[in-house]
Amino acid sequence: MTAPSQPTAAPPFAARLAAAITARRTPSCIGLDPRRESLPPALGAASINEPKALADIFATFCRDVIDVVAPLVPIVKPQLACFEAIGPHGMTALADVISHARSKGLLVLADGKRGDIGSTAEAYAEGWLAGPWAADALTVNPYLGHDSIEPFVKMAEARGAGIFVLVKTSNPGSKDFQDLICDGKTNYEYVAASVEALAARTAGAGRFGAVGAVVGATWPKQLDDLRAAMPRTWLLVPGFGRQGGRASDVRGAFHPDGLGALIVSARDVIYAHARPEMNAGLAAHQWQTAVDRACHEMIERLAADTPAAALRG
Amino acid sequence: MTAPSQPTAAPPFAARLAAAITARRTPSCIGLDPRRESLPPALGAASINEPKALADIFATFCRDVIDVVAPLVPIVKPQLACFEAIGPHGMTALADVISHARSKGLLVLADGKRGDIGSTAEAYAEGWLAGPWAADALTVNPYLGHDSIEPFVKMAEARGAGIFVLVKTSNPGSKDFQDLICDGKTNYEYVAASVEALAARTAGAGRFGAVGAVVGATWPKQLDDLRAAMPRTWLLVPGFGRQGGRASDVRGAFHPDGLGALIVSARDVIYAHARPEMNAGLAAHQWQTAVDRACHEMIERLAADTPAAALRG
Repeated sequence: MTAPSQPTAAPPFAARLAAAITARRTPSCIGLDPRRESLPPALGAASINEPKALADIFATFCRDVIDVVAPLVPIVKPQLACFEAIGPHGMTALADVISHARSKGLLVLADGKRGDIGSTAEAYAEGWLAGPWAADALTVNPYLGHDSIEPFVKMAEARGAGIFVLVKTSNPGSKDFQDLICDGKTNYEYVAASVEALAARTAGAGRFGAVGAVVGATWPKQLDDLRAAMPRTWLLVPGFGRQGGRASDVRGAFHPDGLGALIVSARDVIYAHARPEMNAGLAAHQWQTAVDRACHEMIERLAADTPAAALRG
Repeated sequence: MTAPSQPTAAPPFAARLAAAITARRTPSCIGLDPRRESLPPALGAASINEPKALADIFATFCRDVIDVVAPLVPIVKPQLACFEAIGPHGMTALADVISHARSKGLLVLADGKRGDIGSTAEAYAEGWLAGPWAADALTVNPYLGHDSIEPFVKMAEARGAGIFVLVKTSNPGSKDFQDLICDGKTNYEYVAASVEALAARTAGAGRFGAVGAVVGATWPKQLDDLRAAMPRTWLLVPGFGRQGGRASDVRGAFHPDGLGALIVSARDVIYAHARPEMNAGLAAHQWQTAVDRACHEMIERLAADTPAAALRG
């Protein structure tokens, strides 16, 4: 229930992330968002109503995706909501998926957007960064303020893990409260300043800190500005692909050497079986080949059109 | 995975909540925050390390608390983080706790502070308001904006359920971003205006809507102001008891007839075995008697010092 008194031997998350990106030569992060209605028909989920059986299919699907992308990308991002939607069996499946991804050498970012105060934040940090699910990083919502973020930071540091704090999200509604202008600066810029301070504090002698930021691919101008304002912060960039972000839109998220950004794609890759340009010539049971094609396409698009090209050496 | 196409027969949450408060003649909400280090020693959790066994103890503890408070209060609030902290078995225990509370005639508010966009928000709403955990209401974080709240509202309306959106939280750090002043109004006042609009929209011919607000007991002045600004919004008020809020501090949360507010106490009640003024004369195995005493004390304090007195008729 409490943070371990001694740090583990794990090196800092920021260093592990940079090493993994460098080794795979791409900043691609594959989102794992299992949804019954979107799964490859070959998995037979459509006719399943029993929660345990559906959870098993979710786990099989994610493991099969992981087996395809593990040699290609540094990190995967399971979407907690998708597993929660199907109940306790879904949470067991999620533990299996995280464990499988790590066994394949992938880093795991748990996308839960958690946030609460004091001992409640500690409990979330325990569950996702230290305990039963033991991911490498977790997304965190900043609305409750500094003292709600601090327990996550402490746990991250103790475990060699990381967090990514929501700053400017990819959806149109991010304008509603994040863009409120307070004394000449937006709400999200105040959050960004706090995140950069935490990144600098946790970076020590390293280049990046344990605290990153979520900034949507749908806001190229803000990506530019935030990259400049947050030099020691890893940026997690969702919204690439289906949400409308193009490779050229995410250029600003990178440092010139191709580090500093993680670009997320989920549906375009994991549900590539439904994309005509990816499923050409494939039978239904060959859906993993479509995932492989789509993952390569994403990697190539980022290498062609962003500073991630520098990772190719 | 998707919202049911037809609403259920359940009456609206706002009406069910008002009826339950009126029937029990108190606005008390008991928080269910099981933590190994705080449990009554009689439950033997200290020596347990196996997750399934610990989850079983959490479920037993919460069921035993529920059995004590079910005749006394209208609603309980399980803290999702506490169950998540111990893994998938914890989530199974939570489903058992929710089901037991409902079987005892209690309403259940799942305190998860969830928030995400589009189909991801739908998945959270499915899990907590319709699907496997099926609570009566869920707490929601507004940072991502209107389009992140809307899927929860839709599901709440379809299921006769409710949501409580974070507005001004009880912790000191709520000042960091919630209190930023934008064009003469605080960030949280913008959120409050959105919540009240949603409450009015979902209230129909009723007095209150399906969308409530979380406002901490630690901010009496803001409670006064928000009660006035949000006449059709249920206010969920944490921070009573250990976090420092007194009964007189939460007066402002009520309408004159004693409705409109839910006052939360967790540790002061569920861990009353550790309070000398509550455990006098009790053996260790009689911890439920301490819970009973503390629950009565909370009810009496609210009746003595707030408009909840009007509920006594």
